[in-house]
Amino acid sequence: MAGSVAEKLLTAHLVSGEPNPGEEIGLGIDQTLTQDATGTLVMQELEALRLDRARTEVSVQYVDHNLLQADEKNAEDHAFLRSACRRYGLWFSKPGNGVSHPTHMQRFGVPGKTMVGSDSHTCAAGSLGMLAIGVGGLEVAMAIAGRPLYLRMPEIWGVRLTGELPPWVSAKDVVLEMLRRHGVKGGLNRIIEYHGPGLAGLTAMDRHVIANMGAELGATTTVFPADDAVRRFLRAEGREDDFTELTADADASYDVDEEIDLSALEPLIAKPSAPDNVVPVREVAGTEVSQVVIGSSANPGFRDFAIAAAMVKGRQTDDSVSFDVNPSSREIFADLTKAGHTFDLISAGARIHQAGCMGCIGMGQAPATGRNSLRTFPRNFPGRSGTREDSVWLCSPETAAAAALTGEIIDPRDLAGKLELRHTVPAEPESASVNTEMLVPPPEPEEAARVELDKGPNISSLPDFPELPDRMAAPVLLKVGDDISTDEISPAGARALPFRSNVPKLAEFTFTRIDEDYPARARATADDTGHFVVGGENYGQGSSREHAAITPRYLGLRAVIAKSFARIHWQNLANFGILALEFTRSDDYDRIDPDDVLAIDEVRRSLPGGPELTVRNTTKDEEYRVRHRLSERQVEAVLAGGRIPLLAREV
Amino acid sequence: MAGSVAEKLLTAHLVSGEPNPGEEIGLGIDQTLTQDATGTLVMQELEALRLDRARTEVSVQYVDHNLLQADEKNAEDHAFLRSACRRYGLWFSKPGNGVSHPTHMQRFGVPGKTMVGSDSHTCAAGSLGMLAIGVGGLEVAMAIAGRPLYLRMPEIWGVRLTGELPPWVSAKDVVLEMLRRHGVKGGLNRIIEYHGPGLAGLTAMDRHVIANMGAELGATTTVFPADDAVRRFLRAEGREDDFTELTADADASYDVDEEIDLSALEPLIAKPSAPDNVVPVREVAGTEVSQVVIGSSANPGFRDFAIAAAMVKGRQTDDSVSFDVNPSSREIFADLTKAGHTFDLISAGARIHQAGCMGCIGMGQAPATGRNSLRTFPRNFPGRSGTREDSVWLCSPETAAAAALTGEIIDPRDLAGKLELRHTVPAEPESASVNTEMLVPPPEPEEAARVELDKGPNISSLPDFPELPDRMAAPVLLKVGDDISTDEISPAGARALPFRSNVPKLAEFTFTRIDEDYPARARATADDTGHFVVGGENYGQGSSREHAAITPRYLGLRAVIAKSFARIHWQNLANFGILALEFTRSDDYDRIDPDDVLAIDEVRRSLPGGPELTVRNTTKDEEYRVRHRLSERQVEAVLAGGRIPLLAREV
Repeated sequence: MAGSVAEKLLTAHLVSGEPNPGEEIGLGIDQTLTQDATGTLVMQELEALRLDRARTEVSVQYVDHNLLQADEKNAEDHAFLRSACRRYGLWFSKPGNGVSHPTHMQRFGVPGKTMVGSDSHTCAAGSLGMLAIGVGGLEVAMAIAGRPLYLRMPEIWGVRLTGELPPWVSAKDVVLEMLRRHGVKGGLNRIIEYHGPGLAGLTAMDRHVIANMGAELGATTTVFPADDAVRRFLRAEGREDDFTELTADADASYDVDEEIDLSALEPLIAKPSAPDNVVPVREVAGTEVSQVVIGSSANPGFRDFAIAAAMVKGRQTDDSVSFDVNPSSREIFADLTKAGHTFDLISAGARIHQAGCMGCIGMGQAPATGRNSLRTFPRNFPGRSGTREDSVWLCSPETAAAAALTGEIIDPRDLAGKLELRHTVPAEPESASVNTEMLVPPPEPEEAARVELDKGPNISSLPDFPELPDRMAAPVLLKVGDDISTDEISPAGARALPFRSNVPKLAEFTFTRIDEDYPARARATADDTGHFVVGGENYGQGSSREHAAITPRYLGLRAVIAKSFARIHWQNLANFGILALEFTRSDDYDRIDPDDVLAIDEVRRSLPGGPELTVRNTTKDEEYRVRHRLSERQVEAVLAGGRIPLLAREV
Repeated sequence: MAGSVAEKLLTAHLVSGEPNPGEEIGLGIDQTLTQDATGTLVMQELEALRLDRARTEVSVQYVDHNLLQADEKNAEDHAFLRSACRRYGLWFSKPGNGVSHPTHMQRFGVPGKTMVGSDSHTCAAGSLGMLAIGVGGLEVAMAIAGRPLYLRMPEIWGVRLTGELPPWVSAKDVVLEMLRRHGVKGGLNRIIEYHGPGLAGLTAMDRHVIANMGAELGATTTVFPADDAVRRFLRAEGREDDFTELTADADASYDVDEEIDLSALEPLIAKPSAPDNVVPVREVAGTEVSQVVIGSSANPGFRDFAIAAAMVKGRQTDDSVSFDVNPSSREIFADLTKAGHTFDLISAGARIHQAGCMGCIGMGQAPATGRNSLRTFPRNFPGRSGTREDSVWLCSPETAAAAALTGEIIDPRDLAGKLELRHTVPAEPESASVNTEMLVPPPEPEEAARVELDKGPNISSLPDFPELPDRMAAPVLLKVGDDISTDEISPAGARALPFRSNVPKLAEFTFTRIDEDYPARARATADDTGHFVVGGENYGQGSSREHAAITPRYLGLRAVIAKSFARIHWQNLANFGILALEFTRSDDYDRIDPDDVLAIDEVRRSLPGGPELTVRNTTKDEEYRVRHRLSERQVEAVLAGGRIPLLAREV
């Protein structure tokens, strides 16, 4: 990895450890990003930590998730977040200002800086030559408090891009190609670094598309160099002063090598219901479509909307299709409107929604049962749309707009042939409609110290978490398969999300997509023995929400035994005192049944003693060897019941 | 009323009865309007009536209420409505095409025509010289089937307008003045007809504002003449051919007379939580505001958004305020965008939402508990915003935009003084951005006959309603006060509305704003004796939703005894077999307590026999005289258990 962009970023911020794959390192963190769905907990954590003022260079709290306001709870959260930003010295991005990732890139991203964010797509900032990592809310709270981020040093995966994208193929197809090749686990424990001559044809926003969906590959993060494309982007944002060149050395090397010839790519689409279920669009042409949605942090750029607008201009979307457009930031919406694209979209039959995540996070826009919905979003996990039996596809804006016009899936190259359309991407404005007024700056420290937190009736405090008992003996309340996502553990969507600041209420949704009775059965174990969950590969993939650890913990979950874990959720489990154990023999997974009682003796002594433990199945009278991958610090936290009780002790 | 516009409209459509106040008349109906929250039931009723094809000149189904789509139900309703329109020969206005009232006015309204609509603000079409009446869904279904509308002939209330509106005072202030003078019951059993020289300064859309909120006065409807202002409006819509002049004779007379000097009006505002709680804006100046919303059928015109945009142009809304803008129709949104107003609104910090009713029907935009929300909407009944303890104010766009800029209530004239603003209303486009592609026309009859209804899993059939028993003896399950609205009987909002096509599910929300246990206690009576509800004055005011009759009926409600009833809900009660009885001595209201058992003997014999009945309170051993106001046809329907069983018998 010598001479790579990733290496330079890591080395410049290393505060502990050696950057060898698998070893724990500590990194100094310059910036943080939180969104409202995870941010209310982060602010509650800052309160629990008794922080006086953020110690980062820049910390920004965005409101982009819970925008629908079906009742008072969302508006109360917004008021709480605003007051917490004023109290702790964070920037506050008002509802309507846009999705965190493109907005942060436009207003705050700086090449060469590090960032953690309580959103799994935080990695999108890699498009500017930042090292930006999605983590649990507590990791963000620690970073705001000036603590380093600790993680296992990942491998650096160099992806060399050559050639130029053909007409009707765009950045989304590049990352779909990566998902087609490597699947949702392909990036686990890796930083993806794109390099090579193909970069020259990709704007900073194109790179955002690719970096963003590194999250779907399971990667720690994605980085791009800070080169002329980044300089041009910052210039249009009126921030050329923030530019620093950061490129790989000519002889840079990588732990793993890969190559993509951009000129060989074609329009791709992820079929329901996984982002790596990727096929060429032509393979599924003719499939009927009832909804098309454009927007989200996976296709947030001016060009993504403008190309769709250019395609539908002077035409009408099919009358059986709902064509939904979610501007990704206020600035981009203003630019699109000034350039006439908003008018063209409205005229073609688009439903223009407020700037924000919207349907991408299940906040409205749920399709009818079983009807096909094509989206430019990053994810299509089952039920994430809000519809239990949904059928969501992921594609580029070009492929999406083509379907909106015809009412069926069609390769945009084939539509272009029929309509004599040319793939001319509308010009970006030379200067963006920069307007920082919806970004409320933090007040001076003296004023901040006087701010009272604005806690509406729906804002709870964090619950207490007792420490790990020395003898664990508890039933397996749930056994799940591979690739269980945090959406399945703690669902998003308009019903659940309003309770994200209220752990007892939110807990009632835990695992209900898999087992409606889980919360009731689990609650019964909470004060008693607690319980186990058994999982397959890649347990906890998907979003970074720490609610997926806190709510089952609140309901009595003390340990998960799985074949493997997704990185962010694994960290969240440790942070909130849930023991994450891996089978040493994955066949043992098959030997455990729901309701079996599992026991681990003298766990407080054996956990610091080494990576392996023995789990006894007292129902079947057999034993399994399992291992944990916890660092010393993490062991200490798990024994204490989680990081918060540990820190509370220190204070 | 001789020579009035109302008289001409009534006479031209009279099919039975004499137009003397209080007598039942029948009117031929030319057009119908349904929206999605009420329309799914109307379509189920057409199905129950086995209609082959609509017999009106024009019937349009709009989708403007349930646009958030938190789960699959809304999208499934949209698909059901689309299929029902195709099956029964109605126009279908797609989601995103706009609010029914301005959209209907733009595309379908014709001077001299009659219309019924299953939305209480149907009366807005009176702005074009139509006789347009909000009624229950079943009345609309009957009209679509070619049946006349029967109603008690109202009085005609002539309101003579003189003078011209001063700067910063607009149409909304005119109707707020009417509410200030007469309250929410002031228009009961009346048609309001505006006339006089002051009309010359009011555009057709200004008149829409005033006609729309005739609903809040409780009026049967509001009419304006079809004069040059209407001709200009239709010309801009490319429909000058649809214009017919319809004006009052010079010597027209009215049953009741009133006069408003427009030049004497000032900016007004309705305080929480009733539309008639009206005071001058200056009286409440300085009140802190956390949300401002512009939109809805009460201020739907181009000018209403354009004046707000002109006020905030180049400025920023206060950072503590959420400034929400709901375009009222796709056409107006397109025009605003073309003219640059959308850009100005976005730049000033507005959250632009999809075209539709949105927060006006509690579909999102709920404010924080107790925080002040200023809205250009027609209604502020408690809890209608989605927030139980809300604080919603109603005002003009000028007053709303002023508050958005300052974060507090301020008379726009005073703001204008501070900012050196001039009240220049931006010019309307000479030709509107007419685009009918989101209006799907009905297919030819042969094709329509082959259409299958698209019923998703959430679309129920109508339940069976048994006939009225001869001896009613049942407990009073609920006793309520004056002015109980249909929002309190069957709440709207994002939680309840998705179930509007599913009576058993929706019934679980009945009366829960007043008494959370009502559904559980009531269900117990449904198969047995049923139960009574006792109410005060103006029982059932507010929206036209017939769910407010169907769901309590489904739960066992057989009779309401009240001091007086709101007109539309009273009709809905008769349509669905609930006996509506009025105390002859209103003091008797005070003698009944919850859980008292009331009995009416031989009701099947005595109901057709005369208007008065005796109710025995068997708990207290006392008697009350009550009266019904049912026509012969209505008595027949109530005895049969409602109109649908009656018609089903005929088929």
